[in-house]
Amino acid sequence: MTTSVPSALDTNEVGREMYRLVAELYPICRSITGNGVRETLRLVQKHVSLTMHEVPTGTAAFDWTVPKEWNITDAWVKNARGERVIDFQQSNLHVVGYSMPVRRRVSRSELEAHLHTLPDHPGWIPWRTSYYHETWGFCLAHDRRAALTDEESDVCIDATLEPGHLTYGEYLLPGETADEILLSCHVCHPSLANDNMSGVALAVALAKHLAERPRRYSYRFLFIPGTIGSITWLSRNEATTSRIRHGLVLACVGDPGQTTYKRSRRGDAEIDRAVACVLRDEGRPFEILDFSPYGYDERQFCSPGFNLPVGRLSRTPHGRFPEYHTSADDLDFVRPAELGASFAACLSILEVLEADGIYVNQNPKCEPQLGKRGLYHAVGGLAHSPANEMAMLWVLNLADGEHSLLDVAERAGLAFDTVRRAAEALRDHGLLKEGIVE
Amino acid sequence: MTTSVPSALDTNEVGREMYRLVAELYPICRSITGNGVRETLRLVQKHVSLTMHEVPTGTAAFDWTVPKEWNITDAWVKNARGERVIDFQQSNLHVVGYSMPVRRRVSRSELEAHLHTLPDHPGWIPWRTSYYHETWGFCLAHDRRAALTDEESDVCIDATLEPGHLTYGEYLLPGETADEILLSCHVCHPSLANDNMSGVALAVALAKHLAERPRRYSYRFLFIPGTIGSITWLSRNEATTSRIRHGLVLACVGDPGQTTYKRSRRGDAEIDRAVACVLRDEGRPFEILDFSPYGYDERQFCSPGFNLPVGRLSRTPHGRFPEYHTSADDLDFVRPAELGASFAACLSILEVLEADGIYVNQNPKCEPQLGKRGLYHAVGGLAHSPANEMAMLWVLNLADGEHSLLDVAERAGLAFDTVRRAAEALRDHGLLKEGIVE
Amino acid sequence: MTTSVPSALDTNEVGREMYRLVAELYPICRSITGNGVRETLRLVQKHVSLTMHEVPTGTAAFDWTVPKEWNITDAWVKNARGERVIDFQQSNLHVVGYSMPVRRRVSRSELEAHLHTLPDHPGWIPWRTSYYHETWGFCLAHDRRAALTDEESDVCIDATLEPGHLTYGEYLLPGETADEILLSCHVCHPSLANDNMSGVALAVALAKHLAERPRRYSYRFLFIPGTIGSITWLSRNEATTSRIRHGLVLACVGDPGQTTYKRSRRGDAEIDRAVACVLRDEGRPFEILDFSPYGYDERQFCSPGFNLPVGRLSRTPHGRFPEYHTSADDLDFVRPAELGASFAACLSILEVLEADGIYVNQNPKCEPQLGKRGLYHAVGGLAHSPANEMAMLWVLNLADGEHSLLDVAERAGLAFDTVRRAAEALRDHGLLKEGIVE
Repeated sequence: MTTSVPSALDTNEVGREMYRLVAELYPICRSITGNGVRETLRLVQKHVSLTMHEVPTGTAAFDWTVPKEWNITDAWVKNARGERVIDFQQSNLHVVGYSMPVRRRVSRSELEAHLHTLPDHPGWIPWRTSYYHETWGFCLAHDRRAALTDEESDVCIDATLEPGHLTYGEYLLPGETADEILLSCHVCHPSLANDNMSGVALAVALAKHLAERPRRYSYRFLFIPGTIGSITWLSRNEATTSRIRHGLVLACVGDPGQTTYKRSRRGDAEIDRAVACVLRDEGRPFEILDFSPYGYDERQFCSPGFNLPVGRLSRTPHGRFPEYHTSADDLDFVRPAELGASFAACLSILEVLEADGIYVNQNPKCEPQLGKRGLYHAVGGLAHSPANEMAMLWVLNLADGEHSLLDVAERAGLAFDTVRRAAEALRDHGLLKEGIVE
Repeated sequence: MTTSVPSALDTNEVGREMYRLVAELYPICRSITGNGVRETLRLVQKHVSLTMHEVPTGTAAFDWTVPKEWNITDAWVKNARGERVIDFQQSNLHVVGYSMPVRRRVSRSELEAHLHTLPDHPGWIPWRTSYYHETWGFCLAHDRRAALTDEESDVCIDATLEPGHLTYGEYLLPGETADEILLSCHVCHPSLANDNMSGVALAVALAKHLAERPRRYSYRFLFIPGTIGSITWLSRNEATTSRIRHGLVLACVGDPGQTTYKRSRRGDAEIDRAVACVLRDEGRPFEILDFSPYGYDERQFCSPGFNLPVGRLSRTPHGRFPEYHTSADDLDFVRPAELGASFAACLSILEVLEADGIYVNQNPKCEPQLGKRGLYHAVGGLAHSPANEMAMLWVLNLADGEHSLLDVAERAGLAFDTVRRAAEALRDHGLLKEGIVE
Repeated sequence: MTTSVPSALDTNEVGREMYRLVAELYPICRSITGNGVRETLRLVQKHVSLTMHEVPTGTAAFDWTVPKEWNITDAWVKNARGERVIDFQQSNLHVVGYSMPVRRRVSRSELEAHLHTLPDHPGWIPWRTSYYHETWGFCLAHDRRAALTDEESDVCIDATLEPGHLTYGEYLLPGETADEILLSCHVCHPSLANDNMSGVALAVALAKHLAERPRRYSYRFLFIPGTIGSITWLSRNEATTSRIRHGLVLACVGDPGQTTYKRSRRGDAEIDRAVACVLRDEGRPFEILDFSPYGYDERQFCSPGFNLPVGRLSRTPHGRFPEYHTSADDLDFVRPAELGASFAACLSILEVLEADGIYVNQNPKCEPQLGKRGLYHAVGGLAHSPANEMAMLWVLNLADGEHSLLDVAERAGLAFDTVRRAAEALRDHGLLKEGIVE
């Protein structure tokens, strides 16, 4: 179907660029604070001139407090022969995120109590965290657990958990108006590719592309740690939220699954309708989920005190793919084509938001004569009118000041872009005037 | 199911009368202007004392202008031997409607550029028009095209395209109130039976029948050329439109397909609900379509500046039957039984509109005792109540001043006529009073 | 699924107690007036200290008048040999309810005109009445009709139909507020077990149980003859009706069929939604019917002048089981387990009504930090949150002052009790405050 992505734009090439960024960011050990986030944001800065914000440990953010900063250098479990049987250097998933520093000999039973495995996927390392409960732990492939038979092991987590900062990145791309579209991604997961270096790469690609084109809206990009990052940002930017007209949380956008959109809490916000229209127009399978208060940062943006019109775009949603939060969410799991398709879908969605508006029919009594303006086929008697003519008829019929172009596309079952082009043609012939966008 | 068509009325006989009128009108060569329309309206005047209006060429009608008048005497294509290989005298569909006069010798390639055929239906002549783009052309059966092998042909279209008038017929049948029901049919197609001499015959049959019975509403019948006719009428009768409470465009009502109703732009106007109720009550397959701005004169009545509650009643809708706008839409394609059934459906629809109203329960606290008034079965303990008693209970329960009889029929799933008779029985026993119709 | 029925309560034992009461009441010959009702209510008084009201014959009740009181001692049809071929002593269903006294010899044809049988169920005695049309009649099993071959028979109905009273029982269990929940059952049917000694036994069991626990609402129990009883009560208690917040008519609650709920006339009253939520949570098949003005006393409570939020709870609804209003609706047709299940469902419904309310999130901007309060799992990274945590997130997200707990349960698809307990936990931690119940 038609989308408004410029045909000159090779979304496959964009997908390949996105994949290269995912691959570059993938190895870094990130958490909700610490140098991994900083390193990630610095690499993003090569593409997008974002501002890095540092918020001190202990800063209040609504009901929360910015935690201590966590940094880790190394970690291992050694068997009696001194061999690293679990090794942070092999995978940063081996350590429970935010583990407190530890270095001592432990009994087998004590070690067991600190191990996490996935019996159903014995070859994969799970990812676990303990941000707000001080403990330590290791994650490993279940089929390697049986080898840990020594009665005693040496464990080491060479980490620091100390006052420091929470780091996030922010980038505002100004538009013709101060009204904003928010695009947010979480940057707090270690070596997981789809969740969420894919979202980071998508935000970067959108920022680069949008910077090169006219924008009615201003675009605010957030690269933030999940939960505490959005809470911290919201607590520091309450006044800004009144300018947010639409928003998307970008997460898990590179896997082979179909596109999934989770509605905002409002359920019928323009972003919800724009996404549904674009996914319908794309003509591929997709799924739309109602809002629920579990997931990513839409939980905070859609908390009742904000209730922002922010949905979430994903391919397979979190928790529905077995690779979720495991070592199997790796560079084989995300693919350039899917990254490019997610980019194309986002561009189409943003194009709907940019182009949507109210047009008012200047000849509301009966149809205007399209034929004399060269807008209509000359020979009558045919059974069907082509899509662009149907789009003109629909726009004229609904251009009563109460229907937006998105309303027309929905009711007519026509692609938004077909409707938009019809409206522009009619406007250019003086048959429509742009009204006030609701 | 029950309808309120008087049982004394033989709708089959009405169907046969309608068919005779279709057959009488069928041969005339009509277009959006010209003597064919006048001849058609004069034949209708034998049944209905309509007024013929003549609107001069050049008259402005909103964004349109009444075109030149077109009349045609003869037309042909002759081969090198002087034989008429295409002949207007055999079928008026052979000439593209509104063809400009032409008389000259043309090369085979020039002729080809002016021919219209239907490769998928090689035995049928298509119908084509060019009202607003001056050209000429011939239509013919595709399987005869191969015979036109001469390098040169003589073509003649003995027509005039000159200042004149647009002609339409109008008939107002006054009722108890000035509120109007609009019944409109297009009279601009040449020898096509279903589209739309069937609609003309239906309007005539309704006018004759309604003239003989009490009418709460006034009925306005329009016999107009499509598009330019409704636009012209609307431009000359803007003040009248405020009296139009309900309306139907009657088109393609004689073919064997199931009844199809296209909703007004409002979608939930009383006419939309009345038709749905009647078609449901009839118990035969039917289809209800949402409004779309393509079709017949509902396009103009439902333009946003008017937005009248006017739907369209058809059997198979235009463009959905292969015979549409071809020589196969002939006197074999329409049938007396279907014409009569369309008449019966219309009468039932009009009966709903005539009888619908708000009734107010005079004993709203608990049920009134129907048994002591002879309105209810005497022996209790039965599992079910017959439909007429259920209808009384439903009417009483919903007669709170906020529900019309149509509301009751819809919610109760009972035939409108059953509900109406129940309401009248209750009113006659003083249990209901007629309220104000919304 | 979870319900809030105290686990200490053995609903099977309650079902057995209910069955014993059904069995005790079953043999009594009841009608809409007379000593059978009084005897029934006196037996109920052993369990519930209801007030017995006596309304004199001739008392006006809206459009109705309290009828004469009917009492019957004996009735029979004797054949020529003086043998009782139809005998009231064998089954009180043998006599048409409210039969006028008669004692004479009748011809075979006259007798036939007064007999009622069920050809489709030849072994069952039907139950018939004639409250407002003075006549007499006998009901019998169809397969015994053939034996009545004598040309003459002696018939006797030793009954009185004289000025007296209409008797009903009423029991008000006061709660913290004057807002009332109405629970109504009809007590006018003779030896029919499911219809409605089951409803009487359910009302008794609920009254006994509710008397022992805290109540926000006051509970009003009505034990009334059908139709005339509710009309009489409403006519004498119009002022009371403004306090009725919710209500249920209890009828046919002991048969093996699935639970059926018939909505109030409003259709979306809180009682309608509470019942739907409980039946969904129970996880067993059930059916919800829209309101219709035929059935039991919901007809009167939902008449337009009252329009009370009163639905009806049944298992198989009246008229849908073949045993309905026949001798087959006997003590084998109702079962202790189903009576107990109906009791449990009612308690859960009442618990929803008691516990429902508006809670207001005290930290509406972003989620509060549940973990630091011990309300949330400590280890992150899991794909799913357990139901109690999801319930807390849903309650917090919707606790904007516009959603009740029932709203949350409906939208979240969680059991009401899970939602209620989540809300209470959050309230106990200061995260929610109880708002004003709408």
